[in-house]
This record gives sequence, structure tokens and C-alpha cells, in this order.
Amino acid sequence: MKNFQWPVRVYYEDTDAGGVVYYANYLKFYERARTEKLRALGFEQDRLRQERGLVFVVNSLRVDYLRPARFNDQLLVSADFLDLKGASLDIDQEILRIRSPSAPELLSKAAVRIVCVNIETFKPRIIPEFIRNRIIDEC
Amino acid sequence: MKNFQWPVRVYYEDTDAGGVVYYANYLKFYERARTEKLRALGFEQDRLRQERGLVFVVNSLRVDYLRPARFNDQLLVSADFLDLKGASLDIDQEILRIRSPSAPELLSKAAVRIVCVNIETFKPRIIPEFIRNRIIDEC
Amino acid sequence: MKNFQWPVRVYYEDTDAGGVVYYANYLKFYERARTEKLRALGFEQDRLRQERGLVFVVNSLRVDYLRPARFNDQLLVSADFLDLKGASLDIDQEILRIRSPSAPELLSKAAVRIVCVNIETFKPRIIPEFIRNRIIDEC
Amino acid sequence: MKNFQWPVRVYYEDTDAGGVVYYANYLKFYERARTEKLRALGFEQDRLRQERGLVFVVNSLRVDYLRPARFNDQLLVSADFLDLKGASLDIDQEILRIRSPSAPELLSKAAVRIVCVNIETFKPRIIPEFIRNRIIDEC
Repeated sequence: MKNFQWPVRVYYEDTDAGGVVYYANYLKFYERARTEKLRALGFEQDRLRQERGLVFVVNSLRVDYLRPARFNDQLLVSADFLDLKGASLDIDQEILRIRSPSAPELLSKAAVRIVCVNIETFKPRIIPEFIRNRIIDEC
Repeated sequence: MKNFQWPVRVYYEDTDAGGVVYYANYLKFYERARTEKLRALGFEQDRLRQERGLVFVVNSLRVDYLRPARFNDQLLVSADFLDLKGASLDIDQEILRIRSPSAPELLSKAAVRIVCVNIETFKPRIIPEFIRNRIIDEC
Repeated sequence: MKNFQWPVRVYYEDTDAGGVVYYANYLKFYERARTEKLRALGFEQDRLRQERGLVFVVNSLRVDYLRPARFNDQLLVSADFLDLKGASLDIDQEILRIRSPSAPELLSKAAVRIVCVNIETFKPRIIPEFIRNRIIDEC
Repeated sequence: MKNFQWPVRVYYEDTDAGGVVYYANYLKFYERARTEKLRALGFEQDRLRQERGLVFVVNSLRVDYLRPARFNDQLLVSADFLDLKGASLDIDQEILRIRSPSAPELLSKAAVRIVCVNIETFKPRIIPEFIRNRIIDEC
């Protein structure tokens, strides 16, 4: 599961009048890859919520925009788990553009900290052991 | 409250690579006007939800796109209550562009049916009398 | 290509505080299926735009919302070409939810009219013959 | 123009199934405030684009999410110009929630670097003097 990548196609919905992907929408692509990596590890977030009353929220992020993505581009979004401490998990992410036959181009990088919180109070909760063990294997 | 209109400014977030407002985003503008008209009539949807367990959802809509709205346009969105029956309310809406000194231009029209539903079951509920009375005055 | 269906997964980005997919976001799902059907027929919209100066825009639509889609749902979105006349093409679409082992559930239906326009003037243009021939085969 | 703040109301379109504003949508709020501050200083971005061929794009950002915003919240979004160097401008931003009679609550902070680029090439361009002079007054 290391080197996890999720394919994303750019549609009109993602672009803006500048002709490129709107800067907030890269965050949607980053989250799809995090969601799909958790799913690939066996964790469905709707079940975590209903059965455990916990949800992962973004606590802070840094994003670098290097080259703009455009309508119809085919992208790959990565999500590497870096470090897990208590309630929080640090994730490094990248967005690559695939245009054969050239090499992939790096369009954006992100460092995202997500925190496990109680769904009612939004207070941090230590990430449960069955999730922690699975994530630490990936760090 | 008849002839209710709500101002909307077009930002980059609303546009797409065609240089115009993305077709789904007109629905956001239409909903802002409906929300603000209900607020102007004294109904806050978060309170209806917490105190009464009810929420209004869109059951069906028809939208005509006549002229495209563009980045930075200043719009006016109307919401006219047409007919209330049981759990449902029919609303006619328009989006006008304001560019002085010319006359407003009609960009889009919509016919929207909203239904009052129970927040847990999403089953229709007759619109409560204190709301119905206020809405019928507006039809 | 008849019975074309495109898979869509529901992410947090698509939902709202009602716990269901936000009503405008179904239009994104409908457009992804139209874009992918055109791609499957051999038409890339970025090339049509750069090489021919034409773009397809939505002229009008009707949407029925039958059952709400929720976070994590796996959907199938169809796009059936109905009728092509001059610059316009009528398309019927549906959104189904797939939850094995039960039968697919119909969540929403849409009737969408798209029009081929000049990218500068947004005036209608007759759909070029090489596209028309391919689409008529599908109607 | 120092202490510039722009009011934003939270609608359903902004929220997600967690009951709070979706994390990417705070970036829309931040951009609205930047756009409106530039407008208040006399700069309309559609004119800068058409007449000068330049556009401001986000180069990097850091966002801290401190408390979640919810449906119907009334927010104030600030944009303080910090530093202008060549083609880039650093901006500090905050999102406050207003709930009288209590004090405003800080929900989110952002540090955003925008860069002036050529609209065709997306290559950086020194911010033109008539804009620079006006912005430096605000730093």
C-alpha cells in the first residue's frame, strides 16, 4: 500500500475561468486519495462513524501549486502516511499529470495533518488501536 | 416580500474553463435566494431542523439557461412562492444580470419543487401550520 | 455504447449537512457520464474546442430527485442520446445506487438538452457531420 | 483598507455530511475576501485580465482549521497584505464567526502567497507599478 496512487480525471466542474483547475478543488482530489487509501486498508469511513462515532477531520495543511492542471487532464494522486501521534496523522501527498509518452509531471504537493475526532463534540480522540496498527505498518 | 431578490456576485469558484458560470452552480445561487427569503420571513432552517426535526429538500426542478453569467458579474436572484400543497411548495425563480446603465438581462429561469421531510427518514411531512400560513400570504 | 454507464463514488465533497448529496452536485455526476460517453465515442472536448472552436453547453434540464445518495455510495450514471436536431441534442440520464446483493435503486432521473455553440460568441452552431453521424448511430 | 473584512454566510452548498463546512470550501471564502479587497482598492480582476493579460494565482498556502463553521453561520473573512516582492504577494487571512452577544470566535487562519502571471503562459510577471504602489500602502 506504500506508493498508493489514485487516478483522477479533470472535468469542467473542477476548472475555473482561468482555464485551469480552481485552487480549492485540488483539496478534493487530495481527499479522494486519502479516502481510497483508507478504504484499501479496510477502513470505510461511514462505518467508523456509525459504529465508533469517530470521524477524521483536517487540522492543518500546506499546499504548493507548481503547474496548473487543465480540463481533461488525467492525474494520479498519492497519499503517504508519515507519522501517527495520539489523535493525529501526518500525510504527504502529490498530484502528478500523466501524458504519455512523456514522464509524469509534478503539479502540486501537500502536507496534511488529519485528526481523529468525536463526531458529536469534534474533540480529538486517540486513534483506535485496530486502525493505528494498520496505519503504522504504512508509515 | 413579493418580488424578493437576493444579490449574488460571481467569483472564480463559480466559473469553469468555458469562461462562464458552471451549470450546476446556478443551483447554488437559486438556493441562496430561497434560503434568504425563508430567513426574511422569519424561518431559520437550522432551528427548524433542531427544534422540529424537519428539512426542506428539492424534489424536482427545471432550469433554462438563456445567457451565460461570467466572472465578476453582479446578479439578482428572485424566488416567488407559487403554490403550497401538503408537504410541497412550488417556487419560480429567475437570475438577472445587473450592468448599469442598461436594463437587467434575464440569464436563467427555474421552476423548483421543494418538499418538507423528516430529517431522519426523509419521508414527506405536511408543512407545519405556522410556516404554511406565512408562505400562503406570499403565494 | 447504448446502455452506457459511468461509475461514481460519493465523497465528502459531494455531500451537505443534511447527510446526503447536495442537490447541485448530481449535475456534476450527470456531466461526468456525458463527458465519458463522448470520450468513449472518440470525442475529446478539449480537442473539439482547440481545433474546431466549439463547445457543448447545457440549454435546459429537468431533474427528479427520488431517493437521496449518501457518503460512500457507489453509483452508476447513464446517458442515453435521444434526439439530435441541428445544434441541439437531447439526453436522458439516470443515477442508480449499487448495493449488492440487492437490486440497483433509481435515485434520480434527468432530461438534459445540450447545444453546440461557438466558443467565442456562445451562438448555436449545427453539430458537425462527423459528430452527428456518430451520435445518430447511438440515438 | 487595513483591517478589511468581508461577510460570508454559510449555505448548504458549503457544508458536508459531517455537519460542518467542507475543508476545501474555506478556500472559497478566503478568495472572496481577497477579491473584494482588491475591488475595494480599485482593481477589477476581469479588467486586469482583458486589458493587461495578467491574472493572480495562488502559489502556496497554509491553512489551520481551529473550530468548524456550520450551516447558517455568519462569518467575517479578513485579508491583510503582508509583503510584496517582484511577482508575489503574501497575504494573512482569518475567518471569524459572529454570534452576538459573544465575542467573535477565530475558526481558521491562512497564509497565502499569490503570484501575478501572464494569462497565456502562466509565467510570473512583476506586479505592475500602479498596482504595487496601491498594495504597498496597505502592507
